Amino acid sequence: MTEKTWSIKTELSVMFIIKKSDVFNTKNDDLLDFGKSKRRLVVVDLKVSNLYLKKIIKYFVHHKIDYHIVILDAVETMKNTETLLYLLKQMEQFSLSRRSEPVIAVGGGVLLDIVGLACNLYRRGVPYVRVPTTLIGIVDACVGAKTAVNFLDRRNRLGTYYPPVASYLDKNFLKTLEPVEISSGLGEILKMGVIKDKRLFHLLYTYGQELYETKFESEQADEVIDRAIQGMKEELENNLWEKNLERSVDFGHSFSPILEMRSLTDDSVPSLTHGQAVALDVIFSSILSQTRKKLPEKDVKEIIMTAKNMGLPVFHPYFGNPSLLLEALHDTVKHRNGNQNLPIPTKIGECTFLNDVTSEEIKNVAKIMKRMSLYV
Amino acid sequence: MTEKTWSIKTELSVMFIIKKSDVFNTKNDDLLDFGKSKRRLVVVDLKVSNLYLKKIIKYFVHHKIDYHIVILDAVETMKNTETLLYLLKQMEQFSLSRRSEPVIAVGGGVLLDIVGLACNLYRRGVPYVRVPTTLIGIVDACVGAKTAVNFLDRRNRLGTYYPPVASYLDKNFLKTLEPVEISSGLGEILKMGVIKDKRLFHLLYTYGQELYETKFESEQADEVIDRAIQGMKEELENNLWEKNLERSVDFGHSFSPILEMRSLTDDSVPSLTHGQAVALDVIFSSILSQTRKKLPEKDVKEIIMTAKNMGLPVFHPYFGNPSLLLEALHDTVKHRNGNQNLPIPTKIGECTFLNDVTSEEIKNVAKIMKRMSLYV
Repeated sequence: MTEKTWSIKTELSVMFIIKKSDVFNTKNDDLLDFGKSKRRLVVVDLKVSNLYLKKIIKYFVHHKIDYHIVILDAVETMKNTETLLYLLKQMEQFSLSRRSEPVIAVGGGVLLDIVGLACNLYRRGVPYVRVPTTLIGIVDACVGAKTAVNFLDRRNRLGTYYPPVASYLDKNFLKTLEPVEISSGLGEILKMGVIKDKRLFHLLYTYGQELYETKFESEQADEVIDRAIQGMKEELENNLWEKNLERSVDFGHSFSPILEMRSLTDDSVPSLTHGQAVALDVIFSSILSQTRKKLPEKDVKEIIMTAKNMGLPVFHPYFGNPSLLLEALHDTVKHRNGNQNLPIPTKIGECTFLNDVTSEEIKNVAKIMKRMSLYV
Repeated sequence: MTEKTWSIKTELSVMFIIKKSDVFNTKNDDLLDFGKSKRRLVVVDLKVSNLYLKKIIKYFVHHKIDYHIVILDAVETMKNTETLLYLLKQMEQFSLSRRSEPVIAVGGGVLLDIVGLACNLYRRGVPYVRVPTTLIGIVDACVGAKTAVNFLDRRNRLGTYYPPVASYLDKNFLKTLEPVEISSGLGEILKMGVIKDKRLFHLLYTYGQELYETKFESEQADEVIDRAIQGMKEELENNLWEKNLERSVDFGHSFSPILEMRSLTDDSVPSLTHGQAVALDVIFSSILSQTRKKLPEKDVKEIIMTAKNMGLPVFHPYFGNPSLLLEALHDTVKHRNGNQNLPIPTKIGECTFLNDVTSEEIKNVAKIMKRMSLYV
């Protein structure tokens, strides 16, 4: 065979919008943009369907859309390949077209992640629209391009980067959330404030409790949501496919993934929601920064107080378990290609990355975290 | 909620190489580029392993690589989600790192498609290297970015676009292929010649039989392979994600996908390999062009003769079954988002697209195809 090499070089351009919208108001047709067809497959979370299915159906009837609704019980323990394959079968049975019938996903982060992955896989990609119905969905899941399911007890082990054509944010859904779902979303917002946005942290520190108790009906709600989304957008836009594995938005996501997953099947400890696990990791990583004299104790205390005021846990048995924390860090290092790349705040709104965290240090921080949690 | 819209705009740059290489020669270290780690997960097709496993292992031992080999029986009927999940489990058990341990895929098109999809899904993407061992793998599967598995009896219904970091082409593997595997690869090359490359068609017309009989040990082998790859490269480079659904390389792939899949489980007809199904579709579509007076009968006859000389079938009961052909076209129209976009040659080396093919026409072409097949 003669010598020969070909190089294939090309670029993929991606554009999608995130728009605030009173999305199921019959006068609004945002949701029907991006597809000429009068058919739609609509995937709705079970809890959402219990509250909003009538309104959703009324919307499609009003717009004379031939709709087919798939209900998914999209809880963390159902975020698996079985649910994914079930959804893909529904897409085949609906006989979904390749480009002109965007799938509409209505639910929280788990549902949005599964639907995004199914839409990426079906015919190598069909368009989809995200309608987040939880706070964490609004400020986190709907901003990036990530899709995922859990696999072999590993959180989001399988997935892709596959952006929607649009995300429509409707704050009205927040009114009917459980308090724990509000605080869980606040956990991700807390992360953003501490690592990147001092003003955002200040808003949470001052008004966090009110936001939590009123379910985002208080005056600062819009500013808090907008700043959280803006922060995510800035971090993701230049790194949508995570070519760079030093990601400040990984703050709160270094130890939490395995602890969150493990807690769901371990009857001896309280189960953790995603945002709760993130908040605990935020606190743990902040104390780590304090022990290295990179962050004043006063800031750490304010972070802990803010979390507590927003209904978030400030300690959990798993964060007192150094061997589990080390196992979690080990898996994260695999995910960050051999580096810890551990984001820690250097002051409120700024961060750096560590690559030399030791097991001794983790033991020590776990002890301090337990002690500090008793004083708030 | 206040009015607000964010736009997320970004670009993904993609580059990968296709290189001719004596890949498992211990003096060659092409295969170990693109990853610093001394560990490798190597996925090998069962048939290939029977012939080459000793050589493959010798290679990794020589280079002091901690290798783990996964054998897949990568036949078309095993190209499914079960095999995909099995492979993903192997990747988790190998504890694959995210960037520095490219998975090495050694096999034909089916194996390359499955491994590519698994590598896209695991941790939202790990790098991989393709080593095609069949002719169709060399001239077709290894050039683009497509990954896939079959689903619910539909060929390649699930998949993504996920290019490897490199493809290494080693013609030595062709020597041990079955004749039907050579002719199957020639089916894809025939497609490329008829639709895009007059010189390539001329080479097949003149030397096709010799290439088939010598398993690409004859003089024209390199030029034929190079032109086939060059043609694919030109078509794919500007349309790697298939934003444009008018694709000349879809020639031969309009009716064939469903017929190929159906033939594998239907005992009443001969099973079709992918390249055989493509060649039959090439002939069918060429006759369609002839009936519209866009292609001279002489060219059609040359196409049929060339196929026959290369060991390809020139008729099959399914191409005499208009209702099945219509069902196949219907699914293809879904895949081309509501349009037929049916590529047909207008002369050897050039093509156009049809969007008004009728069922009457399909019945008529099926009859003519049967009649013409009797005269060669």
